[in-house]
Amino acid sequence: MNNVLSDNENALIDAYWRAANYLSVGQIYLYENPLLRRPLRKEDIKPRLLGHWGTTPGLNFIYAHLDRLIKKLDLDMFCITGPGHGGPALIANAYLEGTYSEIYPNVSLDEEGMKRLFTQFSFPGGIPSHASPETPGSIHEGGELGYALSHAYGAAFDNPDLIVACIVGDGEAETGALATSWHSNKFLNPATDGAVLPILHLNGYKIASPTVLARIPKQELEQLFRGYGYTPYFVEGDDPRRMHELMAATLDRVAADIRRIQAEARSSASIRRPAWPMIVLKTPKGWTCPKEVDGKRVEDYWRSHQVPMGEMQKNPEHVRLLEAWMRSYRPDELFEESGRPRRELLAFAPEGNRRLSANPHANGGALLRDLKLPDFRDYAVEVGQPGAVTAEATREMGKFLRDVMKCNLEARNFRLFSPDENNSNRWQNVLEVTNRAWVAETLPWDDHLAPDGRVMEMLSEHQCQGWLEGYLLTGRHGFFSCYEAFIHIVDSMFNQHAKWLKVCNGIEWRRPIASLNYLLSSHVWRQDHNGFSHQDPGFIDHVVNKKAEVVRVYLPPDANCLLWVTDQCLRSRNKVNVIVAGKQPAPQWLTMEQAIKHCAGGLGIWEWASNDQGCAPDVVMACCGDVPTMETLAAVELLRRFKPELKIRVVNVVDLMSLQPPSEHPGGLSDNDFDVLFTTDRPIIFAFHGYPWLIHRLTYRRHGHDNLHVRGYKEEGTTSTPFDMCVMNDLDRFHLAEDVIDRVPGLAVRAAYAKQEIRDKLIEHREYIRRHGDDMPEVKNWVWKGQATSQGASSTEADNL
Amino acid sequence: MNNVLSDNENALIDAYWRAANYLSVGQIYLYENPLLRRPLRKEDIKPRLLGHWGTTPGLNFIYAHLDRLIKKLDLDMFCITGPGHGGPALIANAYLEGTYSEIYPNVSLDEEGMKRLFTQFSFPGGIPSHASPETPGSIHEGGELGYALSHAYGAAFDNPDLIVACIVGDGEAETGALATSWHSNKFLNPATDGAVLPILHLNGYKIASPTVLARIPKQELEQLFRGYGYTPYFVEGDDPRRMHELMAATLDRVAADIRRIQAEARSSASIRRPAWPMIVLKTPKGWTCPKEVDGKRVEDYWRSHQVPMGEMQKNPEHVRLLEAWMRSYRPDELFEESGRPRRELLAFAPEGNRRLSANPHANGGALLRDLKLPDFRDYAVEVGQPGAVTAEATREMGKFLRDVMKCNLEARNFRLFSPDENNSNRWQNVLEVTNRAWVAETLPWDDHLAPDGRVMEMLSEHQCQGWLEGYLLTGRHGFFSCYEAFIHIVDSMFNQHAKWLKVCNGIEWRRPIASLNYLLSSHVWRQDHNGFSHQDPGFIDHVVNKKAEVVRVYLPPDANCLLWVTDQCLRSRNKVNVIVAGKQPAPQWLTMEQAIKHCAGGLGIWEWASNDQGCAPDVVMACCGDVPTMETLAAVELLRRFKPELKIRVVNVVDLMSLQPPSEHPGGLSDNDFDVLFTTDRPIIFAFHGYPWLIHRLTYRRHGHDNLHVRGYKEEGTTSTPFDMCVMNDLDRFHLAEDVIDRVPGLAVRAAYAKQEIRDKLIEHREYIRRHGDDMPEVKNWVWKGQATSQGASSTEADNL
Repeated sequence: MNNVLSDNENALIDAYWRAANYLSVGQIYLYENPLLRRPLRKEDIKPRLLGHWGTTPGLNFIYAHLDRLIKKLDLDMFCITGPGHGGPALIANAYLEGTYSEIYPNVSLDEEGMKRLFTQFSFPGGIPSHASPETPGSIHEGGELGYALSHAYGAAFDNPDLIVACIVGDGEAETGALATSWHSNKFLNPATDGAVLPILHLNGYKIASPTVLARIPKQELEQLFRGYGYTPYFVEGDDPRRMHELMAATLDRVAADIRRIQAEARSSASIRRPAWPMIVLKTPKGWTCPKEVDGKRVEDYWRSHQVPMGEMQKNPEHVRLLEAWMRSYRPDELFEESGRPRRELLAFAPEGNRRLSANPHANGGALLRDLKLPDFRDYAVEVGQPGAVTAEATREMGKFLRDVMKCNLEARNFRLFSPDENNSNRWQNVLEVTNRAWVAETLPWDDHLAPDGRVMEMLSEHQCQGWLEGYLLTGRHGFFSCYEAFIHIVDSMFNQHAKWLKVCNGIEWRRPIASLNYLLSSHVWRQDHNGFSHQDPGFIDHVVNKKAEVVRVYLPPDANCLLWVTDQCLRSRNKVNVIVAGKQPAPQWLTMEQAIKHCAGGLGIWEWASNDQGCAPDVVMACCGDVPTMETLAAVELLRRFKPELKIRVVNVVDLMSLQPPSEHPGGLSDNDFDVLFTTDRPIIFAFHGYPWLIHRLTYRRHGHDNLHVRGYKEEGTTSTPFDMCVMNDLDRFHLAEDVIDRVPGLAVRAAYAKQEIRDKLIEHREYIRRHGDDMPEVKNWVWKGQATSQGASSTEADNL
Repeated sequence: MNNVLSDNENALIDAYWRAANYLSVGQIYLYENPLLRRPLRKEDIKPRLLGHWGTTPGLNFIYAHLDRLIKKLDLDMFCITGPGHGGPALIANAYLEGTYSEIYPNVSLDEEGMKRLFTQFSFPGGIPSHASPETPGSIHEGGELGYALSHAYGAAFDNPDLIVACIVGDGEAETGALATSWHSNKFLNPATDGAVLPILHLNGYKIASPTVLARIPKQELEQLFRGYGYTPYFVEGDDPRRMHELMAATLDRVAADIRRIQAEARSSASIRRPAWPMIVLKTPKGWTCPKEVDGKRVEDYWRSHQVPMGEMQKNPEHVRLLEAWMRSYRPDELFEESGRPRRELLAFAPEGNRRLSANPHANGGALLRDLKLPDFRDYAVEVGQPGAVTAEATREMGKFLRDVMKCNLEARNFRLFSPDENNSNRWQNVLEVTNRAWVAETLPWDDHLAPDGRVMEMLSEHQCQGWLEGYLLTGRHGFFSCYEAFIHIVDSMFNQHAKWLKVCNGIEWRRPIASLNYLLSSHVWRQDHNGFSHQDPGFIDHVVNKKAEVVRVYLPPDANCLLWVTDQCLRSRNKVNVIVAGKQPAPQWLTMEQAIKHCAGGLGIWEWASNDQGCAPDVVMACCGDVPTMETLAAVELLRRFKPELKIRVVNVVDLMSLQPPSEHPGGLSDNDFDVLFTTDRPIIFAFHGYPWLIHRLTYRRHGHDNLHVRGYKEEGTTSTPFDMCVMNDLDRFHLAEDVIDRVPGLAVRAAYAKQEIRDKLIEHREYIRRHGDDMPEVKNWVWKGQATSQGASSTEADNL
């Protein structure tokens, strides 16, 4: 059989690999003496050794071979590295490719620069030990594991000329998210999307144990990947020369497969799901490091996971071992006298944007184009009097998104993501202009499935989130629709993305990307049918723990407010926007004009529902969220009937973060404005969508905080009726009215009869639903009658702030 | 080929299935007229239709066939139902088995009882629409999907005679957690564990789309399961008679496989991983419901997912269709005149504890035996003077756990779970008495891997959590060790378990189970090496949103406190206990005697570190968590040097919930005690392990809250040094001392020189670590010298509370 690589080529790629390995070991260990110009001394070695060697030589090996392939075929490719804790490898290669010095000029291609390269790694004021936003060519943090392949597919969607190589560690492969993400191939259109080339790196060991996939028979492993729908190619061994030839030949084969698959799909009328190629690369963990240290197995074992040997300051034998190890890469053959990598090595790497570390897709903001957005005002629900009409807020949003989709079909840069909840959350109008992406088998009666569909539905929140992140990080736009309770499934993925964005904000060359937008619907107050397990409004508690400048939380009270918020989110950059909105028919409160003013302020007094004009209120009734808003207004009506002279101010909050002081959140309301809105001395009855203490946590520094009484979800619920959900959590109109009566000084005595009537109502409610299994007509068919104030229903005070 | 079932047997099992289907449809639809004694009228139908039909007939089919198998072979079996939203099926079968009426006597086996069975379903005051704690025979909520198989394996561990049938929905199969949980077979010991029989129900559709696994070629599906290490058997069709024969024959075959595998393993010296059987059951979604409604496909389509037809009050045709559908099950043949199921149906079910709905493993608390616990005092770290000795807290805990393991090896009811972090979190001593569970391939140099190991390590937090839940729910004990940041991966699983426990607390027949215990280590303050992605202390924020009676959060400041807490957690029941503790060498503060007093109080004054004896303090320095405690004490020392006359009270908090008022949490400190400890008028500088606002959220109602100033993690960090992590978040000794100086009235002026010295120190720190890459010796080697107070170091005030 003819070799793919000539002897020279084999030697060159090996030299490149050795150079990357040398530069990797140097990063982990060396502080001085980067070129080993003199014998290594303990003083040359960093006092604290941080970093992961185990995966690094394998990553360097793959990287070198991808470089060769890119150059040979002039490929548009970048690489996602699941084992991102192999940071030294990515950085070493970015350095060899020249990208690193271009971005960070003081890390130059000479001895001085190499010393900086080594010193800065895992060093205070330097760079992290894992792949991170600082790493050129990476869109994938080397932190939590499991999302490499979802990210890769997200990046490949709508990038038909791009190949995303994706290195999956065999540790990572044990995670749930990764295990299901292999199925992404059922959603990738070979005609209009790019390709993903998964490379499973069978490194053999995790921190302290073997990996599962490295310890099943090869036949089982092969069946697993054929079962996942791939054509696996195996590259196994530890002899470098043989392995270079094998890897090069395999990559040639795989690249040809990809081209053939794409050519067939792109010249054919109908799309069939191909068996995409993937590679299983089996190499020893810590490959090329000392086989043993202190008589203990290190290479090809878990002991090489982090630093193969420590105690360098105390153990001269370890220093000698390190020197021998580093010299085994023959640095003299790799670097010129100046420390610059030799010309043939520099020439080995691809050029310009073809370099893995410089591919523009890995700095997606640079490719980002604004969405064409229709005017959201055109989707306004006509609201004559507040509460007079009913609409399903998220369905109206879906109509707007349908036209956003339509306007950007040609640009192919907008997708929607949902775990089989697109229609349940009322975005079905979107399917008028596109389909669900589906490359698996179809049947004649299937509904809106097509290979080029732009609605991504798989029953995995991990996949939705991972795909969307990959899509956004490569410069596109999207929206994630999810049941509120189950978005917690991706709490940790949200964490990682929010942290990524926070760091990016401090890196000039990272261009801003489109925000990660969530619609959380089927929310806690309307999970009366699915019951307790589906009731959890805590994602927003989780979100507000992250850096204020990257998170926004919106709880629009009606459809017109939701439309404003949607438009806002689609225009925003480098944020995570969370919208919580109901999908059930609900009263509409604001005209579009009012909604725009109200939302722009983040919160505001609803004059038309208040009767404190021209005087201080007796009580502030605040509300945030659609159901709490409705219950608050119904309580206002009840109180008006009992005590028309009671001066009530209604404040509605859309942008949750506006409750925080500006010192805590850039969108926060000034203390002065807060005092004007909420007063400093009147009781505030706050009806909140989520856990009540979140409001306290946001407002504990405000002057009126001691007067604040919050109602919200307190983990009470089951399968019941919508109104009963409110009653079980004391958030219903009756409890809210009672709260007002109890807290306005002196009122409890004067309104004792009202309290009794309210108590009777609550008993009546309980009896009614037990008898009828449905809510009393009085609450079910309730319509706000209110009282037009002197200003009528035509303005809010939001613009006064 | 001979049939497995005689004609009579086939007819009987079909009748049983029809009865379950009839009872399921009845639950979803009927309010009156349960036996259709008169033509169905719209008034007989519930006003709100809630429930899921789609999966139900398949569940009923499986249930009937498992019943047959149990009886035939006298099996000890119970069933975990992944598609738990098919609640009607589980309830119908528990009713047919008689269990339901035994537990809920008013739902009797007659017409009256049947009417109650129907009415209560998804009805206010009745029962939830999904499988739930109220459902006999279930340990698995039908809420969030993905955990069925992990639960099943958890239940099977150490139950050698038990077979856990596990129905996996093809929707659920798309989730990440489920996709990796198939690999659980590499951790199940055929000799000493029970068997899991996975039944993948290829129902074809999710809410609105086909499922992935139903739309790949059969060959691919088969390869997938062979790749996962199973022997798949296919049962496909829609003709009931044929399907009964096929399912019965397959179950017979599968049961024989299981017996053979177990017999081989149990008679052999060495264990090899077997290819356990699993079943792929392909039936139409909504099987046996109307094929079309209003001209639209319903059976074998996603439209049958919930209720196949609605609008019953308005559409008489739908009422007729429903009646025809229900009569198609021929209720006259199934129920006696009284409404009681016919004798042969009642006789068909297994008896007593053999019934799936009455298997004691599904009410694990009834089987629970207390752990034999060694005396935790025997593991005490000797502490002479506070701070004089150093220990790794979690390593000491590991020694205690080793002996807990040892004492209960024979009982086989204790396991540890960790995503490859057991040793990293310093529990390696446990491996002196047991091994890691491992039934995959081994190599000669492998370290502590064995089929009967009791340390469960797979790199999937989902698996660890799911296994542990299954293990606890079936009456055993365990502990989960995890990196603090990545426990967020199972946020949503924690939610579901905490909700399960909350509901169980209200169900008398559910016996209390052992608590779910977490050790979170490798915590935020010592992720200086892995960097920003590994820094997240927010799980405790998430936990405290759940019902107060089921959650506890402990932050022991040293090893002896950690030992007390560990013992406490292992004795507790029906709770989720979260412990956050460091693994790095750290100063030890309390003798065991002191630790016991301190922890029993939940929090207390550390007299030996305070100098306010006999007078009111100028400042309260509170701390919670090991690193904040150390920094607080170092700040006290600094302040003593600057201002010896400043009266400082040091309060340490172990049990976080003790900060809440007793009205909010059963472990909460009374307002009076809180005021005594924290004062109502002195500044409180609180150094906290987690996000600072959590302390505000817990204390906002306390009198001294306005004086409270909290430092904690504010999302600042990267790869740096341990001390720098504190500095970046203003939690270090210098910032804390500065906080005191700034907040004690008048002190800032008097101690201006001290502030300058502190500022200089911070600059020195920054310069030092940039030069040396390590912490200044002054902070790195800091040892508390303190000043013995008049009481010496021998008592805390915790016992005074």
